[in-house]
Amino acid sequence: MTDGAAVIAVGTEMLGPLRQDTNSLWLAGRLEEIGIPLLRKSVVGDVPAAIARELDSASRAAPLVFMTGGLGPTADDVTVPAVAAWLGVPLRRDEDFLARMRARFESRGIAMPAVNEKQADFITGARALENPRGSAPGFWAEREGIEIILLPGVPSEMREIMERRVLPELRARAAGRVARRRILRIGGMGESAVEEMVAPVYARFPNHPVTILASPGEVQLHLCIRGAPEEAQAVLEAMEGEFRAVLGERIFGRDDEGLSETVGRLLRDRGLTFSVAESCTGGMISTLLTDVAGSSDYFLGSVVSYADAAKAAFLDVAPDTLRRAGAVSEDVAREMAQGARRRFGSDVALAVTGIAGPGGGSAEKPVGTVFIGISGPRDAEVVKRRMFVGDRASVRRASSLYALELVRRRVVAAP
Amino acid sequence: MTDGAAVIAVGTEMLGPLRQDTNSLWLAGRLEEIGIPLLRKSVVGDVPAAIARELDSASRAAPLVFMTGGLGPTADDVTVPAVAAWLGVPLRRDEDFLARMRARFESRGIAMPAVNEKQADFITGARALENPRGSAPGFWAEREGIEIILLPGVPSEMREIMERRVLPELRARAAGRVARRRILRIGGMGESAVEEMVAPVYARFPNHPVTILASPGEVQLHLCIRGAPEEAQAVLEAMEGEFRAVLGERIFGRDDEGLSETVGRLLRDRGLTFSVAESCTGGMISTLLTDVAGSSDYFLGSVVSYADAAKAAFLDVAPDTLRRAGAVSEDVAREMAQGARRRFGSDVALAVTGIAGPGGGSAEKPVGTVFIGISGPRDAEVVKRRMFVGDRASVRRASSLYALELVRRRVVAAP
Repeated sequence: MTDGAAVIAVGTEMLGPLRQDTNSLWLAGRLEEIGIPLLRKSVVGDVPAAIARELDSASRAAPLVFMTGGLGPTADDVTVPAVAAWLGVPLRRDEDFLARMRARFESRGIAMPAVNEKQADFITGARALENPRGSAPGFWAEREGIEIILLPGVPSEMREIMERRVLPELRARAAGRVARRRILRIGGMGESAVEEMVAPVYARFPNHPVTILASPGEVQLHLCIRGAPEEAQAVLEAMEGEFRAVLGERIFGRDDEGLSETVGRLLRDRGLTFSVAESCTGGMISTLLTDVAGSSDYFLGSVVSYADAAKAAFLDVAPDTLRRAGAVSEDVAREMAQGARRRFGSDVALAVTGIAGPGGGSAEKPVGTVFIGISGPRDAEVVKRRMFVGDRASVRRASSLYALELVRRRVVAAP
Repeated sequence: MTDGAAVIAVGTEMLGPLRQDTNSLWLAGRLEEIGIPLLRKSVVGDVPAAIARELDSASRAAPLVFMTGGLGPTADDVTVPAVAAWLGVPLRRDEDFLARMRARFESRGIAMPAVNEKQADFITGARALENPRGSAPGFWAEREGIEIILLPGVPSEMREIMERRVLPELRARAAGRVARRRILRIGGMGESAVEEMVAPVYARFPNHPVTILASPGEVQLHLCIRGAPEEAQAVLEAMEGEFRAVLGERIFGRDDEGLSETVGRLLRDRGLTFSVAESCTGGMISTLLTDVAGSSDYFLGSVVSYADAAKAAFLDVAPDTLRRAGAVSEDVAREMAQGARRRFGSDVALAVTGIAGPGGGSAEKPVGTVFIGISGPRDAEVVKRRMFVGDRASVRRASSLYALELVRRRVVAAP
């Protein structure tokens, strides 16, 4: 068994299509900070046999098991007796706690409902963890070297007990071990191509596995180094340096900085203004750019020229070009970019025209064909033709992000 | 062991604080429809020993185990060999599949990276499930009465394989008991206001609880009736009828039909064309409208007039109006709508101007203030002022959806 933690969320409602356990995300983040990796997490219903089976599984995977939910007063809250049964210990009624709970209700002018009484049933041999925000206490129990920490499912209550009673103790034990994280974000490349380039870096850090993740329009490298704070930081910086040496300008941002933030930062730093002419992306590039607070510093606006007439009226695309080359063509992409730059008076303009599907494709220009034009900040216009696979939403998203990546490279290269 | 399913999501990145498994939500919903309850779900890292342990646990909890993720070409994709080892069978290289995969890469003008070869390593004795959207096939394996269904982690690929290859077979087995679902979608109202109106309907169907859910810009009523197919259908229709009697036109759509689809359908049915002038929403309304395939039938385009100069140049907003009333004002919203309608030559035009934040607010017009103007299809322009709470993303989203809801009501009311 490796060092680390498991989380079990208890609650039948989290097994349907609508509700998700989110406590485990918060727990993962707080545990990671003190160098405790989350090895496994799971969700089970409010069923004693299922809870027992899950404790078997989790305790085989990790020596520290967090369990959230099912501590409430209602009939479907069965976690406490289920855990006591699994530990092989009886429940005991804590009369002091019961009296305090009753007093708390009375101080709010409410008689304590009878159902709440069961919250005074404590697990024999376990430490009770006071809950300043609610009536259900948590518990910290142990069996054969496995620690079980029971917490309420209400996020604010769970967090408060963790912050006050659990994390300080775990932190003291961790004796300085931390986790340092970094996300490197790469644009305009596929996952396998990135992996081929960075394989030599992986090989130099065999003890620090890196996760590679593809999402539309970008590939991410997730680094996570555990150890003493300074050592972990040094390893992280060395790894990042090596990845940067290999990938160079292909890395567009790190951690939370997405492509729109990066493009915005570059434009602002260089004092450049920007405009967009969109067709198949239908406003998505503008939406991504204006998601960023303060984007009005550099973003002047865009035209979504869906109809051909709009391409002519708002962007001065020549009707002759539309007739001759078609709306999805290199020439139209170029004229759209030129038109946007001139009409908005921006330093740089981007244009995208393509076929997002499902209809509209042809043998010569199948669904997924996209032309991307950039005008400015200097030099001649560039137009790239690309082919994106997938459904309408994927083509639109991939086109938008690839176009922004081209803008980034162009602006980076500008003096 | 009860009848039902378990889901295991494989991927170390889903054990950190940033990424959540969402495939299990979709799987839970689709399985529920054919009467298969989800009994347990879990997440483990890309670690063969952990995957084997998790298969032990899941197969004790349910006879049908779905496993998503880790089928990709990179070094951290270890699910296939881990499952084969757990089943006690060797992998076999499928040369036909390898040749087809190579051909697919070549058809896109790319040499297949060597790392992809391992995706042709099949689990001996398992059925391969063809993946029309990606290179990694799924697998359907069995061991001692436990069925293991391996699926890619990419949601679109996972769903496609489920819809085409897995669900039809499970549905055929389910023999009789079904779940019938309906989602009724209500625009322009808050959750409590909807709940007050529908409380009498709840009371008439005490055995069929309804879930009410609020999301930005809409409230949803989720109905789910279990039973024999015809009986469940009849109850569902009776309930829907009663909700419609109470809510009337406030229901804009059902199930998958979102507001953009509804607005698009109404415009197409009435032969009306549409254009948009956006400011604070930055292209989001256009993006929502053009998410819908075939939207070019009615959507002519939009102008995202972020800078004041663009409002004048592209939409003929009078510089004097901008000076006198300010860019976020009733008068500017009206002129933007008029300008878009005239310039695009559309039957109806929508305009939105507001303050999404975090900066730009004032005592008179705090962050969240939004003006929405509609011009056409007949009668005078209308402009509404609204105040939305939340961060930049929430204000933008709520404004966009509320604006589309106003268009829907206006078009519904048009003869």
